[in-house]
Amino acid sequence: MTPTVRFDADRARRIGLPEAVFCAGKTAEQIAIAAEAGRTAHGRCLLTRLDTAMLAALPSGLRTALDHDPLSRTAVLGDWPAVRDEGSVAVVTGGTADLPVAGEVARTLRFAGCAATVFADVGVAGLWRLLEIQERLAAFPVVILVAGMEGALFTVAGGLLPGLLIAVPTAVGYGIATGGHTALNAALASCAPGLLVTNIDNGYGAACAALRALALPADAGRESPAPQT
Amino acid sequence: MTPTVRFDADRARRIGLPEAVFCAGKTAEQIAIAAEAGRTAHGRCLLTRLDTAMLAALPSGLRTALDHDPLSRTAVLGDWPAVRDEGSVAVVTGGTADLPVAGEVARTLRFAGCAATVFADVGVAGLWRLLEIQERLAAFPVVILVAGMEGALFTVAGGLLPGLLIAVPTAVGYGIATGGHTALNAALASCAPGLLVTNIDNGYGAACAALRALALPADAGRESPAPQT
Amino acid sequence: MTPTVRFDADRARRIGLPEAVFCAGKTAEQIAIAAEAGRTAHGRCLLTRLDTAMLAALPSGLRTALDHDPLSRTAVLGDWPAVRDEGSVAVVTGGTADLPVAGEVARTLRFAGCAATVFADVGVAGLWRLLEIQERLAAFPVVILVAGMEGALFTVAGGLLPGLLIAVPTAVGYGIATGGHTALNAALASCAPGLLVTNIDNGYGAACAALRALALPADAGRESPAPQT
Amino acid sequence: MTPTVRFDADRARRIGLPEAVFCAGKTAEQIAIAAEAGRTAHGRCLLTRLDTAMLAALPSGLRTALDHDPLSRTAVLGDWPAVRDEGSVAVVTGGTADLPVAGEVARTLRFAGCAATVFADVGVAGLWRLLEIQERLAAFPVVILVAGMEGALFTVAGGLLPGLLIAVPTAVGYGIATGGHTALNAALASCAPGLLVTNIDNGYGAACAALRALALPADAGRESPAPQT
Amino acid sequence: MTPTVRFDADRARRIGLPEAVFCAGKTAEQIAIAAEAGRTAHGRCLLTRLDTAMLAALPSGLRTALDHDPLSRTAVLGDWPAVRDEGSVAVVTGGTADLPVAGEVARTLRFAGCAATVFADVGVAGLWRLLEIQERLAAFPVVILVAGMEGALFTVAGGLLPGLLIAVPTAVGYGIATGGHTALNAALASCAPGLLVTNIDNGYGAACAALRALALPADAGRESPAPQT
Amino acid sequence: MTPTVRFDADRARRIGLPEAVFCAGKTAEQIAIAAEAGRTAHGRCLLTRLDTAMLAALPSGLRTALDHDPLSRTAVLGDWPAVRDEGSVAVVTGGTADLPVAGEVARTLRFAGCAATVFADVGVAGLWRLLEIQERLAAFPVVILVAGMEGALFTVAGGLLPGLLIAVPTAVGYGIATGGHTALNAALASCAPGLLVTNIDNGYGAACAALRALALPADAGRESPAPQT
Amino acid sequence: MTPTVRFDADRARRIGLPEAVFCAGKTAEQIAIAAEAGRTAHGRCLLTRLDTAMLAALPSGLRTALDHDPLSRTAVLGDWPAVRDEGSVAVVTGGTADLPVAGEVARTLRFAGCAATVFADVGVAGLWRLLEIQERLAAFPVVILVAGMEGALFTVAGGLLPGLLIAVPTAVGYGIATGGHTALNAALASCAPGLLVTNIDNGYGAACAALRALALPADAGRESPAPQT
Amino acid sequence: MTPTVRFDADRARRIGLPEAVFCAGKTAEQIAIAAEAGRTAHGRCLLTRLDTAMLAALPSGLRTALDHDPLSRTAVLGDWPAVRDEGSVAVVTGGTADLPVAGEVARTLRFAGCAATVFADVGVAGLWRLLEIQERLAAFPVVILVAGMEGALFTVAGGLLPGLLIAVPTAVGYGIATGGHTALNAALASCAPGLLVTNIDNGYGAACAALRALALPADAGRESPAPQT
Repeated sequence: MTPTVRFDADRARRIGLPEAVFCAGKTAEQIAIAAEAGRTAHGRCLLTRLDTAMLAALPSGLRTALDHDPLSRTAVLGDWPAVRDEGSVAVVTGGTADLPVAGEVARTLRFAGCAATVFADVGVAGLWRLLEIQERLAAFPVVILVAGMEGALFTVAGGLLPGLLIAVPTAVGYGIATGGHTALNAALASCAPGLLVTNIDNGYGAACAALRALALPADAGRESPAPQT
Repeated sequence: MTPTVRFDADRARRIGLPEAVFCAGKTAEQIAIAAEAGRTAHGRCLLTRLDTAMLAALPSGLRTALDHDPLSRTAVLGDWPAVRDEGSVAVVTGGTADLPVAGEVARTLRFAGCAATVFADVGVAGLWRLLEIQERLAAFPVVILVAGMEGALFTVAGGLLPGLLIAVPTAVGYGIATGGHTALNAALASCAPGLLVTNIDNGYGAACAALRALALPADAGRESPAPQT
Repeated sequence: MTPTVRFDADRARRIGLPEAVFCAGKTAEQIAIAAEAGRTAHGRCLLTRLDTAMLAALPSGLRTALDHDPLSRTAVLGDWPAVRDEGSVAVVTGGTADLPVAGEVARTLRFAGCAATVFADVGVAGLWRLLEIQERLAAFPVVILVAGMEGALFTVAGGLLPGLLIAVPTAVGYGIATGGHTALNAALASCAPGLLVTNIDNGYGAACAALRALALPADAGRESPAPQT
Repeated sequence: MTPTVRFDADRARRIGLPEAVFCAGKTAEQIAIAAEAGRTAHGRCLLTRLDTAMLAALPSGLRTALDHDPLSRTAVLGDWPAVRDEGSVAVVTGGTADLPVAGEVARTLRFAGCAATVFADVGVAGLWRLLEIQERLAAFPVVILVAGMEGALFTVAGGLLPGLLIAVPTAVGYGIATGGHTALNAALASCAPGLLVTNIDNGYGAACAALRALALPADAGRESPAPQT
Repeated sequence: MTPTVRFDADRARRIGLPEAVFCAGKTAEQIAIAAEAGRTAHGRCLLTRLDTAMLAALPSGLRTALDHDPLSRTAVLGDWPAVRDEGSVAVVTGGTADLPVAGEVARTLRFAGCAATVFADVGVAGLWRLLEIQERLAAFPVVILVAGMEGALFTVAGGLLPGLLIAVPTAVGYGIATGGHTALNAALASCAPGLLVTNIDNGYGAACAALRALALPADAGRESPAPQT
Repeated sequence: MTPTVRFDADRARRIGLPEAVFCAGKTAEQIAIAAEAGRTAHGRCLLTRLDTAMLAALPSGLRTALDHDPLSRTAVLGDWPAVRDEGSVAVVTGGTADLPVAGEVARTLRFAGCAATVFADVGVAGLWRLLEIQERLAAFPVVILVAGMEGALFTVAGGLLPGLLIAVPTAVGYGIATGGHTALNAALASCAPGLLVTNIDNGYGAACAALRALALPADAGRESPAPQT
Repeated sequence: MTPTVRFDADRARRIGLPEAVFCAGKTAEQIAIAAEAGRTAHGRCLLTRLDTAMLAALPSGLRTALDHDPLSRTAVLGDWPAVRDEGSVAVVTGGTADLPVAGEVARTLRFAGCAATVFADVGVAGLWRLLEIQERLAAFPVVILVAGMEGALFTVAGGLLPGLLIAVPTAVGYGIATGGHTALNAALASCAPGLLVTNIDNGYGAACAALRALALPADAGRESPAPQT
Repeated sequence: MTPTVRFDADRARRIGLPEAVFCAGKTAEQIAIAAEAGRTAHGRCLLTRLDTAMLAALPSGLRTALDHDPLSRTAVLGDWPAVRDEGSVAVVTGGTADLPVAGEVARTLRFAGCAATVFADVGVAGLWRLLEIQERLAAFPVVILVAGMEGALFTVAGGLLPGLLIAVPTAVGYGIATGGHTALNAALASCAPGLLVTNIDNGYGAACAALRALALPADAGRESPAPQT
């Protein structure tokens, strides 16, 4: 058999985003190979969907070298880059249960040198929570909205804010909302103009899209202390 | 065969709501039999889902006796009752395309002597449209919300208004919203507490529910001029 | 990051219902913060979807202060209010497996001072079980129907009872009924006029809707012994 | 190419039911060939799903030889058989819009010499309509229930009647009930024991199942006047 | 609260089938109450969906009194009745993984005094397995077909056998067949005339339907040794 | 704007199959441009999904140059190639209503010089129709199975025939089978080993797959009279 | 009733995008009112989903004042603005049948003064069509991808291009692709990082999102000749 | 009861493929009986979907006699056959998480004496990974494509390769891709001509189809050392 892991080291050159290691469905050995390939190519590597059970199964050398965040299930191998952008991206969540996905957004952005501001628990059933930060949010060129259940936050924010809006539906909810499809469909069907949407729980993708919009080129190697989430 | 139409004349006594004639799927002859049975039992009869093609196919005696509204596809045989209630029910629509369903709500209520106030085109992508009538709406014991697409109106209103809230999703929208399922699911999954939901486009049912909540008993026979919608 | 829990203490003023803490998807710490915020604002706080595993993970001070009911997965922090309403709400279940949801309905109502009467195991495959309580049920202004599987109870009750009817479909059933969608759709498609519907297993929402219909304002602080369920 | 129509003349010997000609999707020429093959084999032939447009397109010799019923879209080529069974099968419909499917049931049964009794418009939102015929229905060995919307009739009848019960869901309804899936799923998920189900609108299949249960062998050739539906 | 378990002791009189205790979703205490009620009313009681974990949780007196079969998850409290019927019902499975459901069919029938013959592993990918028993199967007035995956057995048997055919789709399969919906839909859409269908995995319902078709009245109290499955 | 039609003339070299013109959704002008580009590149061009309404809208020069078959909605511009293969492919349909799709299969194959044999109306509800041609079918290296409704033909043939089997589900059927999804899923879930599947109604794709399996290279320009379907 | 059309004239100030008139579901009178309100507020107004039948039903004064494009079903009332941006946005379609949606994208952008470049018929089954324009596309800050069927174009472009990528799935396709859900889901599930998605056929929304990303403020009133599409 | 396992020993003669033992849903005893029957009939037997938990539950004699591969969950009882074919089949995976299914493909082929070449991690988001092996892949008569998520690999390969292409969608992905339906639908809706599709995760079926296409007859008894995967 040909090698089972083929790291796309050329990706950063083509599209400005280095390949990250999506850990779900991979064996510990495959994760280790891919992460090392990423560090070799770019000086650092981001791992996503790395839960604590798989973290424990990784080779101890790798495990201890990772800066792992259990809530967002992300980890970084190698040093964090310096912050090159601040104030461009806001991340807004509908509820506290959306924070793991918001964490994936923020850590992915931070891995590219972009420090985002997170506004948590801004569900529109208590509209004042959004209105009191409306002016601050309107100043961000990119606002990433993270919400589950019925996703009404997407539309209300879409009618109030001028920036690029990225809706990340989450699998938060029960009954008809199980799995996140109601929030996803509400984001897609929104009557607010110009709302864009990612797959359910795809915080990584939303961050990458923000980087594309900001045209922040991949940055290999400048060091920085770990971010405080 | 036994008779093909058996009017439930006892319904008004049991639940306070006379049977209406749902015309979709019935033949012209069956509609005529049912409508006459309704008028015989209660002095008047409401017909729903009566489109202009079927109206034209009805026996001319019946057709000319009907007060038919093409937008809401409702008709009344016999005299309208006097208004017994005003100020209890508000009907709010997200967009102008939701007006046919809102019309079914308002005409069904009016048939029971309840004059509702309709607020049209209050989509939350332009939030000021709701906020500027928030205080007026908060005074209604029952607010019926009619919206399609992503149905964000349901949740925002649900967080602002104290009355009984009835969400009527409509089949307005395209793509993922086709047929009204997105609006329906958003209403069901809403994070606003105490929102209740009907089937898609079921304006008649929402009106009946409002009458149940207001405990307005069925009223047979007092006369009134036709309402101006 | 901004605070991760923002309690909507103003909600009771706006809509007459204090915010409850929906525990699913929250961390123990977030639950504790929200519950304390609720008690601070209103003198007591209702927690829903709090299963025994999460209960065990709560800070011991909070855990022992809660009046927790494992069947309905609800808990109350602070004293129960005095009963202000009795006889307004009946809760009817199709089967014994629907009792957890019915318990969420009854405990939420009781938290607002409304003592409901629960009628269990009234499935219409044994129609006498409904008919023998029909007269009693007809006296309630609000009847909350809790049923899974095919949800025929909703329609039969809808044709017999005059009060406001709220259908709560449950995720009870197997095969095509898995997850509660069949009961939900049957409630929505019911030919009984004026039936209203909540999300699957949304006992909390049904209780809130009943309180909206009864216009029972939020009550902060009067004491009462714990209810016997 | 091999012949495009291959009539299964042996079917009656194997399973006791002659092949009928399902006309939807066939060309006029194919219908003609199949119908003649059926008459040649069995002396008569039943055609189903033959709407008036296709009827008009048939060769005139065949068209005038058919006893066609537009409501049920069925036709018979050749003479009707004598009635060999009466009192074994009842057909019950939830509403008048279910009559086309009930007609397909009754005409298919009659084509096999079995005269069914049809009870129309027995929707359980007016429960008395079922209860007043309960005793009569309980005397039938086979009861075929035809209903759309939420299909609650299936369950209520299932708890009251001892005979073989066959549920035929119909595509009657709107919104979530569009296409008949809600009625179908409700029939399948029914808590009434021993209810059996056919495809949506499959009146022909329900009749065939009744004939299987009654073990009425196929009867070729005895004459009878056309039935009065 | 009213009692949480209301056994329908009158059911056997109405429809000829005593109520069985469906254990899924009930507490151990509720199961015990219902089973005792059944034994009191009819001298014996059938329990379905009783897995070994719940069996272990039952009161020891009840547990040891049960004749429990782990494969079919059925149990009987009280003595088995004598066999009153043999040769009327065949049960055919597509694969060995369908045997749990077939066991529920056979045990339910046997509980009513009807001894069925089970033919296992007759999948039509090896057509000879069906053809070699075709003649034997054709002698049964009722044939119950139990199959998952694509459910082709239903149609092939439907074209070969004259008796009443009951299709029980099972949740056997993966990918698109997960949960049994493909088998269910194939049974419903079958081109074989007169096939009837139950919910997925509803062996109990299929057995009840067979008893309805055979008009085997409920039998209370004659003793018999336990059946050998 | 860049040109709106870009014919993939290189496709035949890469994969051995020239591009065909899929007409649905194209304007008459776009069809004409593409068809001419195909004839220029390969001497002839196949058009699919060309219904009679669009045929009438084509420029008259093109329209009269086409060999159009209304049943299969296919047309050929330019001369048919000589037959280079006979006896490799059989096309089997479950019913007569599947013939339009079977025609698309056969005409696409014939356009590549491969003459297929069509066996029509071989539904397995009359199993003898398949068994009597089993031996003939077993001699074909490729058998294309075209069926709608429940698609049982796919599995039965899959257990009897050794060649490459390609299942083409069709949108033939009603109720649960509407649109062809039941047949599609049954083909995918089949317990017969090695069955392959195309999209619903994709006769063109099935023919292309057969050509891939037979490694029949694209043939440009040898003449032949039009085929007799 | 309150007015049925309430134009959101403040929207341009809040989010930089003036309200457009979505014509589907509106009456001719409502369209006319909304369009005039738009022109009054902003000097010009964009209308979408305006098909030729509704165009013909508009008041003649309005109808003749519109610059209507039948393919994209868009129209402009008032003068087009001058071009303020060129080279920022590329629009790429998978097939020619996607051009109506691409036209809605391009005309909406042009209405805001942004001239996009359209690249048509770039389906990846002929990969060279994309590769030969890869370098040109890589220079655009925003690339809007319009494709139906399986939507593979989204992923391939996503791995090659650095700009902001917006996927617009279209309802082009048949069988499993009917309605555009397969393309939509493929866009959402894409393994290419940072792809964003709109509702099916939502060309208007994609254009608005591009304008948000480019931060092109709304421009009221500068004149320009009509664009050549 | 008749025997519960009936091995189809005749299958190899009919279709050239011996029956394999699909272990999911079978008891340990049933697996043992079936595997021994297979070895008796053919000298060796393939077991699929045998996870390590069930492996541990097998009788120790059988367990130790098996050559089990935990990744692909396949096992062989008896000796492997000699390699009779090399170079006919390539297996390509989109990602490393698809390797378990690819392993089922390769081991099933190898069990029939066909040594396949596996190319792993060839996702088209890094298109160079496919292009650099395009020429090698074009030399294989059969290429089996294994991919989850959005399945774009299927279409891109379909436009580049001339051989028979078999798409195996996998249940790799999250959100909208959960369960593999997005990849499945993308394969079915592909615009690449002649792509064929199996059920989700059906590696066994894809291998059988390849063997059908290559007309590799079943081979009983020649020995060979175990393959190195």
